[in-house]
Amino acid sequence: MDQKNSLSDVEVTVNGTRKFAVPTHETLLSSLTKAGIMLEAACGGQGFCGKCRIRLLSGQVVDQQGSPLKPGQDGWYLACQVYPGEDLVLERAIQVSVSSKGEISDPFLEQADLLPPLKKVLIRPVYPSLENNYSLQEMIRQVFAGEEDISIELRAVQELALIAPQKFEEITVLRSFKQIIGFEPGDTSSTLYGVAFDLGTTTVAGMLVDLQKGKVIAAAAETNPQTAYGADVIARIKAAGTEDELNTLMSAVRKCLNDLVAKLCARAGVANKDIYLVTVAGNSTMEHLLMGVSPKYLTVSPYVPVFNNLPHFSASAIELDLNPGASFILLPNIAGFVGADTVAAIVGVDQDLTSKLTLLIDLGTNGEIVLGNKEKMLVCSTAAGPAFEGAQLSSGMRAANGAIDEVEIRDDVCVHTVKEELARGICGSGVIKAIAEFLKAGIITPSGRFVSNDRFALLPPKLSKRLKVQEGQKEFVLVFAEESASGRDIAITQGDIREIQLVKSSIFTGIETLMENYGVMFKDIEQVLLAGAFGNNLNLDSALAIGLLPSAERKKILPVGNAAGTGAVKALLSVDILERCRSIAQRAQFVELANHPGFQAKFIKNLTFPEGV
Amino acid sequence: MDQKNSLSDVEVTVNGTRKFAVPTHETLLSSLTKAGIMLEAACGGQGFCGKCRIRLLSGQVVDQQGSPLKPGQDGWYLACQVYPGEDLVLERAIQVSVSSKGEISDPFLEQADLLPPLKKVLIRPVYPSLENNYSLQEMIRQVFAGEEDISIELRAVQELALIAPQKFEEITVLRSFKQIIGFEPGDTSSTLYGVAFDLGTTTVAGMLVDLQKGKVIAAAAETNPQTAYGADVIARIKAAGTEDELNTLMSAVRKCLNDLVAKLCARAGVANKDIYLVTVAGNSTMEHLLMGVSPKYLTVSPYVPVFNNLPHFSASAIELDLNPGASFILLPNIAGFVGADTVAAIVGVDQDLTSKLTLLIDLGTNGEIVLGNKEKMLVCSTAAGPAFEGAQLSSGMRAANGAIDEVEIRDDVCVHTVKEELARGICGSGVIKAIAEFLKAGIITPSGRFVSNDRFALLPPKLSKRLKVQEGQKEFVLVFAEESASGRDIAITQGDIREIQLVKSSIFTGIETLMENYGVMFKDIEQVLLAGAFGNNLNLDSALAIGLLPSAERKKILPVGNAAGTGAVKALLSVDILERCRSIAQRAQFVELANHPGFQAKFIKNLTFPEGV
Repeated sequence: MDQKNSLSDVEVTVNGTRKFAVPTHETLLSSLTKAGIMLEAACGGQGFCGKCRIRLLSGQVVDQQGSPLKPGQDGWYLACQVYPGEDLVLERAIQVSVSSKGEISDPFLEQADLLPPLKKVLIRPVYPSLENNYSLQEMIRQVFAGEEDISIELRAVQELALIAPQKFEEITVLRSFKQIIGFEPGDTSSTLYGVAFDLGTTTVAGMLVDLQKGKVIAAAAETNPQTAYGADVIARIKAAGTEDELNTLMSAVRKCLNDLVAKLCARAGVANKDIYLVTVAGNSTMEHLLMGVSPKYLTVSPYVPVFNNLPHFSASAIELDLNPGASFILLPNIAGFVGADTVAAIVGVDQDLTSKLTLLIDLGTNGEIVLGNKEKMLVCSTAAGPAFEGAQLSSGMRAANGAIDEVEIRDDVCVHTVKEELARGICGSGVIKAIAEFLKAGIITPSGRFVSNDRFALLPPKLSKRLKVQEGQKEFVLVFAEESASGRDIAITQGDIREIQLVKSSIFTGIETLMENYGVMFKDIEQVLLAGAFGNNLNLDSALAIGLLPSAERKKILPVGNAAGTGAVKALLSVDILERCRSIAQRAQFVELANHPGFQAKFIKNLTFPEGV
Repeated sequence: MDQKNSLSDVEVTVNGTRKFAVPTHETLLSSLTKAGIMLEAACGGQGFCGKCRIRLLSGQVVDQQGSPLKPGQDGWYLACQVYPGEDLVLERAIQVSVSSKGEISDPFLEQADLLPPLKKVLIRPVYPSLENNYSLQEMIRQVFAGEEDISIELRAVQELALIAPQKFEEITVLRSFKQIIGFEPGDTSSTLYGVAFDLGTTTVAGMLVDLQKGKVIAAAAETNPQTAYGADVIARIKAAGTEDELNTLMSAVRKCLNDLVAKLCARAGVANKDIYLVTVAGNSTMEHLLMGVSPKYLTVSPYVPVFNNLPHFSASAIELDLNPGASFILLPNIAGFVGADTVAAIVGVDQDLTSKLTLLIDLGTNGEIVLGNKEKMLVCSTAAGPAFEGAQLSSGMRAANGAIDEVEIRDDVCVHTVKEELARGICGSGVIKAIAEFLKAGIITPSGRFVSNDRFALLPPKLSKRLKVQEGQKEFVLVFAEESASGRDIAITQGDIREIQLVKSSIFTGIETLMENYGVMFKDIEQVLLAGAFGNNLNLDSALAIGLLPSAERKKILPVGNAAGTGAVKALLSVDILERCRSIAQRAQFVELANHPGFQAKFIKNLTFPEGV
């Protein structure tokens, strides 16, 4: 066996950056895992969870017997089911995934050189003597001689004063850019953690990162507590009308960040005081609210933010319970409704580095679209998400337990719910799948209308009795009251379908407008990256069926998971990436859709669903 | 009269910088006052308070009849008693003095160009439009285009967000160095105040300054509340041993600064929120305690401070109740026991600009001595003050009501007390005068000992009965118990005399050591500037009598009042002066007296009082 191993090693290249030898007798999942590339494999490599997906750019994979295999319908293989038949160049589905060791791996992270903006520097101070009667401040400055403008923060001076009389041989200096932010006696350089926050309108995600190793060691998410004050940014801005209200919303989200820090620390067994750096990527409104800056101006034409790029602060400025000297970096905004989350998503997928013409669609509560590459990027924002996230629909809910997330319509309706609990409502992916099924079954027309009662009567009887009229509006019941957890019908109304049409048209029209501005067509686009918490769960077939993207582009589409989160993590790890964020915020050109000639006409045209699904 | 006015105008030059025409028929006091140079004139120009002193460098003054006048014994004239006989070049006694209008004038201030580090800039913002859809932050940056690294503080961003929706035509921008620290709607540029603090071990003085006019508009002083924790810096450092104790001392002095701000605002009718800038000049220990930085390291050889020069902070960092965006500048230290107060005193009297070889003696609770000029400055620190301030003496007290401040000895003792109340104790100037009188009357010998009982018996009988022995120690009673407010004898003991000898020797030996290091003798020194709260009240004759300075130097001695306070005020008014402070802190060479060869021998020799007074 050993001999076979060495004889049959082939070379695998992953995501263009990692290259290593793997044996032909092991599944790719196993080999990649050993090489430190963690794929999600919820079923433990048994081939049914469908998460360990890879795509071949060159080479051939085989089954255990050595027979060549073809990819699945979507162009992907499952790494747990295939063996390398020869040298391979492959891509894997990009998704921050937790390994069994609790370490989280992301291929884009692996590419980042570790140059965190916060460093621990171990020094052996030369204490003042009668010959060298400099101040302690000068003693430290001499260590960083040649860096004229380095300065020591007051808190750090206070710490230095407390530890210096004990004349430790070694002192660990905490350094953030040109500022010394803390001192610790002895050598503490092995513990240095950061937290990256993806501050969404609906969901706040936190990633705890070991800054020495460049690894995400824990991840957690919470519902943004501001949702109690409105589902979307406009509602939030209204809710923060007075200074008191602004403070309320500010405090709510700051508390949420602290709750996440507590969760992350508990999960990873890390102490708050060992977290020294924070990055936050949020949309402009979320960033304004976090910083206690009134977002009112965002609602005044021409809808600009108060700030794009704030200097680095102490994390205590936003009341985070971390090391008292911890630094806090708010990633920069591009425009009023294209925030730092988009900047982070761009660096998350390296769109600013690639020469490939890339379409990045980040679907959250808002939908941001970026078209371009390292030469030029156009961005726009659409009011995408609440409907896609299940909000603003008559039976909508988030993808929590009991949410309908799968719908199949043949003779009757068959639904699947999260955790297979009794149905409580329908989440975004369920709605889209339902509408795709409606189209296929002829329940609605491409115009989005329920077919006439006459034609409805021609459907299988179990379907026809699901059409009801409530308060003068047609609706199609997916789960009747007697079978639902709520005791009420779970239905999709004509209004719900209109809501989804508005959203899908917004996004599609946004894409069209950017393409027109860029002077390109769909065929010119080399890759379509689908990002966002929603991008992950999106049933791609359904999305194409309802016309979110042209079906012809299917092969170019790559789901990239929480790209903004990845970007926020990368920003923790490298000053170069922070610099890229600043550069993107300045270079990316914002396209205001509403003012764009022809936007209205395009928007109305795109309300229609595709024919002949 | 008018004709006479114009016919008889002569030119007066004051302190080398102000030059103007004055009529010959008015007293110099009157003319100088009209020219905006405020001399102190407590008696209203009647010639008896002796405060409006001037010295002639060239020219002749005359009496009302036109007869030439000679200066007083001390070389000075009273401005209220003299008329200009011809063109004059004159110097006036330097003392921050309050005019009848409540404005305070200082000749050194008049020389400073107004370049305050904090400015109000009135702008007419070009609000974002569809064509110019920049953020509000960029809108402001454009006003300061060409200054790449200007940044807007978070608090200011918050203010901008609140006022921008109202689209004021004019906005006042508050700028401190490269930072924008606040915004105010409309034109508020006429109100811009700062406070300079002289943070002494015993006394804290505050000066409220109109930064637009460069004028001190109110002054106030309080006892440093930390005196409850020890009279001198060593006692304070011990009292701040634990973090809790450090916080206690820190809070005490911060509260004192706020109390002074409240006083100053009430006196000048200025609102706290209109104060935007603070400078603090304190000795190293006081600065450490104010900033909450443990001063423990100052007591560890080689007695260095933790910091010399901190960056600028928000005044909220030390909890000052001013405009929330106010900036706070802590002037830099030179060494462990030569602090920012000395730096401020040097700029206060422009020692760093003059080519005259200058000896600056700043006597407070500590005594700091600076020898040099713009080419080179040597500094040292001596434990001068507590005794000179009346502390550490058996009957010592501060120069408060009832303190003996004048002593005359002929057949008997005649004392004068502050406010002529019943004697409660003796203050610094009283002690020095008393010792000078003891020497003259033959009560003590130049070695500082009370003369033998035999010789004492030869003194006038009223004097001889004043010699007592208490607890084995000789003492001389100035005021007997039955005539004192305390009901106890007010006496000067042999120990008190020793205390004064130690202090005067410290200072004299400090001066000698600096001269030796500099390679100069007394005759080479061109001016001796006597600064400090104590320098003001010092009876120069007595000081020379006890040998604090050689009598031969008398003509070179100029009392300069609270030079450190003047320096702190100047630092408020000009970035050039702040730069001078930084430069002085770096250039001034600290001479550690205790380590100096021959110091002990000199010190013992200098304990002796001068012979034949």
